[in-house]
Amino acid sequence: MEHRPSLKRKAAGFSLLFLGALGTVLPILQGFLFLALGTEPTLNQPPGWAKLFAAFNVTVVAIFAVEYAARVWVAGVDPQYRGLGGRLKYATRFYPIADLLAFLPELILMLVGGGGALLVLRVLRLARLVKIARFIPAFDALGAALRRSRSQLLTSLAVALTLVYVSAVLLYFVEGLGGHHQEEFASIPRAIWWAVATLTTVGYGDVYPITPLGRFCAAIIAIAGIGVVALPAGVFASAFSDELKERREKESGNDEIQ
Amino acid sequence: MEHRPSLKRKAAGFSLLFLGALGTVLPILQGFLFLALGTEPTLNQPPGWAKLFAAFNVTVVAIFAVEYAARVWVAGVDPQYRGLGGRLKYATRFYPIADLLAFLPELILMLVGGGGALLVLRVLRLARLVKIARFIPAFDALGAALRRSRSQLLTSLAVALTLVYVSAVLLYFVEGLGGHHQEEFASIPRAIWWAVATLTTVGYGDVYPITPLGRFCAAIIAIAGIGVVALPAGVFASAFSDELKERREKESGNDEIQ
Amino acid sequence: MEHRPSLKRKAAGFSLLFLGALGTVLPILQGFLFLALGTEPTLNQPPGWAKLFAAFNVTVVAIFAVEYAARVWVAGVDPQYRGLGGRLKYATRFYPIADLLAFLPELILMLVGGGGALLVLRVLRLARLVKIARFIPAFDALGAALRRSRSQLLTSLAVALTLVYVSAVLLYFVEGLGGHHQEEFASIPRAIWWAVATLTTVGYGDVYPITPLGRFCAAIIAIAGIGVVALPAGVFASAFSDELKERREKESGNDEIQ
Amino acid sequence: MEHRPSLKRKAAGFSLLFLGALGTVLPILQGFLFLALGTEPTLNQPPGWAKLFAAFNVTVVAIFAVEYAARVWVAGVDPQYRGLGGRLKYATRFYPIADLLAFLPELILMLVGGGGALLVLRVLRLARLVKIARFIPAFDALGAALRRSRSQLLTSLAVALTLVYVSAVLLYFVEGLGGHHQEEFASIPRAIWWAVATLTTVGYGDVYPITPLGRFCAAIIAIAGIGVVALPAGVFASAFSDELKERREKESGNDEIQ
Repeated sequence: MEHRPSLKRKAAGFSLLFLGALGTVLPILQGFLFLALGTEPTLNQPPGWAKLFAAFNVTVVAIFAVEYAARVWVAGVDPQYRGLGGRLKYATRFYPIADLLAFLPELILMLVGGGGALLVLRVLRLARLVKIARFIPAFDALGAALRRSRSQLLTSLAVALTLVYVSAVLLYFVEGLGGHHQEEFASIPRAIWWAVATLTTVGYGDVYPITPLGRFCAAIIAIAGIGVVALPAGVFASAFSDELKERREKESGNDEIQ
Repeated sequence: MEHRPSLKRKAAGFSLLFLGALGTVLPILQGFLFLALGTEPTLNQPPGWAKLFAAFNVTVVAIFAVEYAARVWVAGVDPQYRGLGGRLKYATRFYPIADLLAFLPELILMLVGGGGALLVLRVLRLARLVKIARFIPAFDALGAALRRSRSQLLTSLAVALTLVYVSAVLLYFVEGLGGHHQEEFASIPRAIWWAVATLTTVGYGDVYPITPLGRFCAAIIAIAGIGVVALPAGVFASAFSDELKERREKESGNDEIQ
Repeated sequence: MEHRPSLKRKAAGFSLLFLGALGTVLPILQGFLFLALGTEPTLNQPPGWAKLFAAFNVTVVAIFAVEYAARVWVAGVDPQYRGLGGRLKYATRFYPIADLLAFLPELILMLVGGGGALLVLRVLRLARLVKIARFIPAFDALGAALRRSRSQLLTSLAVALTLVYVSAVLLYFVEGLGGHHQEEFASIPRAIWWAVATLTTVGYGDVYPITPLGRFCAAIIAIAGIGVVALPAGVFASAFSDELKERREKESGNDEIQ
Repeated sequence: MEHRPSLKRKAAGFSLLFLGALGTVLPILQGFLFLALGTEPTLNQPPGWAKLFAAFNVTVVAIFAVEYAARVWVAGVDPQYRGLGGRLKYATRFYPIADLLAFLPELILMLVGGGGALLVLRVLRLARLVKIARFIPAFDALGAALRRSRSQLLTSLAVALTLVYVSAVLLYFVEGLGGHHQEEFASIPRAIWWAVATLTTVGYGDVYPITPLGRFCAAIIAIAGIGVVALPAGVFASAFSDELKERREKESGNDEIQ
């Protein structure tokens, strides 16, 4: 019997979430899609496409601007943010700033019509990701996972970076100074680029040792090192997974108590 | 003593499974092998090979057609699917549709003898995978694993895709707009292709940053990001493994109870 | 007090192991090293090197031949293998066959002096790995791990191979038949080569999609699939690790009981 | 109430650590950065940069020399290292040797002003990493993790290396001796280079099989083997992670007891 209200509340929450997704997430995702496609020169854009794109853009920016104004206005109801000063205080918090960045740069671009360097402003649209993050309940688990595994993360990162540096110095001597004086190993920073590509197992193939000694060293480094460089990422992934699991258990525990 | 019947039943089940494998799985696997080899132009096909291939194909299609007809006919025994309407109702469920797709397209091809675009129909042979799936008991654990880890999967997928997008935008500015105006980074979609190849550590080597700043950003992204993009796959793999383990324990528990 | 004998026995075992390593493992490892280096044409072999190599080879083969003869002879002490027939029976078991393969092919090469095709026989030297395996206690944990995870291994392998096949068929249509008719995707077997290289994240870079649609499909396949194809290897690795841990615990348990 | 002193001590420890970081870690990191950048020929070094770099270098070396002298002097307070002989005894331990290597080679370079081969001495600066390691509490967990997983590590390393060797021999026969006699597979050591690049999933793309049979073998090796070659690294990573977790739990346990 106790479960009913919880389920009801959940269903109501789900409906709200669904409407929120329709009203917020979808336009934002479309905005990112259009931002990406708009930079592709070889795309055969049908006539009228640019107009549609612009109209869509104006609508979204308008909605976000109105929403922002409403939010700041409503914040004044809270005694903490009363008056003009209180609203300014509210506006300098993290979420309101993200909300502002989500439309202001594009609004300026629309009004000023700037080209060239100003287009960089369009990328601030990425601030809209923060808006989406609110609809994904586990998104703030990222930060908790970072805090949770901080000391392990730092240690494993230090070990990984040390390995990258030492490997790079080794190959710099073997392939850059010795061997066939490969251009791509001719300095430690270049060798670091090789070490990162190898130890993360990306292996683009733009840089690789060619002398037998270099290949011998690279083989040992690869077999011994791939696990070590994957450590920080693995530590974070495991902390994130634990955090999500704990929250789920806590939540289902709360439901049972009610 | 209680174990005997269970063991006997298991042995009987194994024999049936074995016959099923001989009668169903092997022809299907051969079908996939022939489908693959048939598309390879440089293969020196011995004379008579094509005829053998065609004969094999006709046999398999005939068996599947007869099996399908028998299945639909027998389904009528169940009161739920009595009569013509009931059988039609049965035929629109998931498994019967897969059974139909497993032979009908090829039957049409044989009768009509179509070339060109119709050959695409041959790929519907992939529906036969569903037939095989019935013989692998743990295959439906895939679906259960998906449902089980749904919310974790969605969150980690969202995080992974966000990282891919943000990395792509960053490198688009550094390497595509700035730097040497690399063609391969000249738009965000192209940079996304690079970001996916890098963060999944595939690293084909068709696209990679060449400016020092681009390589610096790419190195940081690679070290920090490979674990994050591997998260969804890892979450699913772990849920699948847990699901299999649970089923095995449940099964051995059932055996002990009997 | 009870611990002493165990420790003593361990120390004695360690000494024997050490002598065994000096007498068996080192020559075998050297044999593999020489086998590898002997195939490298650009190696500047110092004069006399070939003679040293041959002498080393003759010594090792002689030792192994004598050891084999002694082993088969001594086996007759066991009532199970008495007489000539018993020794033949012994000689057809797994380890004696491996012991025979460890020196016979090379002995034949030395006596017959064959070149060309007969050199392939030299590779049977790999049978010596079985000799080494006896000195690594956990080596037979490999087989136990395989048995232990058999059903999980089969299921995950089936899922992985299905994903490889379906991905290959998809890209064959998009890049091989459609798109720019890339040679490297012109048949399903070639596309399978691409799918394996991508889904294992090896990514040599000899084959990759170039059309936007192909890259879109490949990106989705890569993000969703890398965890699935890594499943069988992960399942085996985890079973092997569990097996080793269990043995260690059992062993330390035995020590405590004594 | 009991927690206060512990917290206070922690805070004090943190302040000391912070000062230590400012005074030791930062100059060392800068030293590594300058060492790396100094080898890059295309870097447009602003005038005066070299002088600044040299001054920085002299300062750091001087500080380390003074610190070393003070350390050795102060060691004499300990009755164990009294007198000149005691101090020599102290100076031959691990940490003091690392402290010596951290500045002596560069001091010699400054006094002698050697170029060419002597520049190799500069790399001994890597000994400074040991200095940093003291400030990362978990750094010595690396050694403990190595000891802890020694036997598992050795076994999995032996299995991984065996797989690499056997794969290389197989591809040497298929692609080097047979097939198109690829130069890159023309000897076992070269094939080992391919096997390492493939099984660690680095996949530079400088070597890959081209014949159908070679690709078939390589695909099987890749799917079956990537987990096995990742075993040693995974075993070490897991031991390191366990070690860190245990230490953290022990530490928080100690805090609670106080």
